[in-house]
Amino acid sequence: MTKTKIALVQMKMTSDSKKNKYIALKNIKKAVKKGAKIICLPELFTLRYFCQVEKHSNFNLAEKIPGPTTEMFSSIAKSFRIILILPVFEKKASGFYHNTCVVINEKGQIIGKYRKMHVPDDPQFYEKFYFTPGDLGFKSFKTSSGNLGILICWDQWFPEAARLTVLKGAEILFYPTAIGWHPREKKKFGKSQLESWLSVQRSHAIANGVFVVAVNRVGTEKQGNKKLEFWGNSVVFDPSGNIIKKASQKEQIIICEIDLKKVEMSRRHWPFFRDRRIDHYKGLLKNPKEA
Amino acid sequence: MTKTKIALVQMKMTSDSKKNKYIALKNIKKAVKKGAKIICLPELFTLRYFCQVEKHSNFNLAEKIPGPTTEMFSSIAKSFRIILILPVFEKKASGFYHNTCVVINEKGQIIGKYRKMHVPDDPQFYEKFYFTPGDLGFKSFKTSSGNLGILICWDQWFPEAARLTVLKGAEILFYPTAIGWHPREKKKFGKSQLESWLSVQRSHAIANGVFVVAVNRVGTEKQGNKKLEFWGNSVVFDPSGNIIKKASQKEQIIICEIDLKKVEMSRRHWPFFRDRRIDHYKGLLKNPKEA
Repeated sequence: MTKTKIALVQMKMTSDSKKNKYIALKNIKKAVKKGAKIICLPELFTLRYFCQVEKHSNFNLAEKIPGPTTEMFSSIAKSFRIILILPVFEKKASGFYHNTCVVINEKGQIIGKYRKMHVPDDPQFYEKFYFTPGDLGFKSFKTSSGNLGILICWDQWFPEAARLTVLKGAEILFYPTAIGWHPREKKKFGKSQLESWLSVQRSHAIANGVFVVAVNRVGTEKQGNKKLEFWGNSVVFDPSGNIIKKASQKEQIIICEIDLKKVEMSRRHWPFFRDRRIDHYKGLLKNPKEA
Repeated sequence: MTKTKIALVQMKMTSDSKKNKYIALKNIKKAVKKGAKIICLPELFTLRYFCQVEKHSNFNLAEKIPGPTTEMFSSIAKSFRIILILPVFEKKASGFYHNTCVVINEKGQIIGKYRKMHVPDDPQFYEKFYFTPGDLGFKSFKTSSGNLGILICWDQWFPEAARLTVLKGAEILFYPTAIGWHPREKKKFGKSQLESWLSVQRSHAIANGVFVVAVNRVGTEKQGNKKLEFWGNSVVFDPSGNIIKKASQKEQIIICEIDLKKVEMSRRHWPFFRDRRIDHYKGLLKNPKEA
């Protein structure tokens, strides 16, 4: 059995985290009805994207792992016998907060977690204020439905992240995401930004012979006088870089059957791994000298 | 002065290497008339793509550097005061042959060479038979028209190659190339293969904030009963991944003005370099354990 069905829950977040969890549950139920075995939620799915502003009280939103959110969704995973990819704003210890994603298996057990390694900081994406960069490295998790690599949003732009996760064994890369347009930039740069985002992920699929799955939020979120328009477009690429399914910019569940045999097939026909020059890659571990 | 004009000579090769050099010269003259300062020729441009077959006598086609081809084109570079990116089938020493690219400055001096680091081997692309993998590492060359990184064809599929060359200072990545379709595969996979090729290079531009220039050959080449249809589509991407110019599948010179200021601009707005996790990239230097 190399075939499995994955679901991408592209959702809009309210300001009420209980409600967001309820919406997620409702979508999970729909996905289960359609036969999904692995279900992925968007980055920080229980919350509006609070990183639009730097506000100390937002640290109250963080929780421990295991904690209330993982407990609720562990029992959901168990009762539906599904694998859940569950983003959580994690409090590791006082002063240590992470943008984390937990993998829960069909028995309801947490089989591991990934802490976002590359943390962005851009106007209205003030993640460096909130999140300590991940300290667990790049990870792949063995499940009954294949080896799942987890990366989060900004990690998307780093070929190193995809490569390292695949070298750990991943056959599918999941990227819970919160990406969108600054409304003032959308007209001039919006199309190019979205296409760049798709192109980079497509290339991870090709360069690594791996399925790539990005799960984004939708909706325009306001924080004071600031606004972000999350662009949806959640997408599944096969290991040759073809789009299997792609969402629009609406709330949507994407259900997609994938065949893990394609991973091996793609790596045979595009045998990049054979030819990596690991004897000459040391420079990747250094920053350049001044220039 | 951050602006410069580059030319991509997309050409068809004959079985006569003198004629190919003459065609290249004719194209260089045309490009010079249009103001080109940096001119790039396709991979192994003096020759039909002999790697379609494994034939020992083909090693006779290799030459030393400096040698007849670099001498001829050094004097051309000097007389037109241009920078030339000149692929050569190089004989380093008896038994050591490389797929090489030389950079010649506007004084006619060879300022450096790059030896293809990732060597492919695929039906009708039997490069491992001919070429020892490069022993000079990844390189960028400082010129009066910017820092030029050179990579060759198969290197295109390796994000490590682009990253390392940019970490050496490259502002433009040149990829002399010989890629095409197996005629029997074209109908089923041709479109997807071409798009993958474009997508991966586009992503190098985005992930590294660098201009990417691929210069391919065109024409159908027969070797015995074997055939390859080289797909042209030579292309220039700006550092945000937008296509500035792209060729069709005909013989063609692409002339393209680029502004190196865009490199800095792109890296400010997409600050990926800031966030690389060099403390966690060691795995890139290893191959995975058995699985």
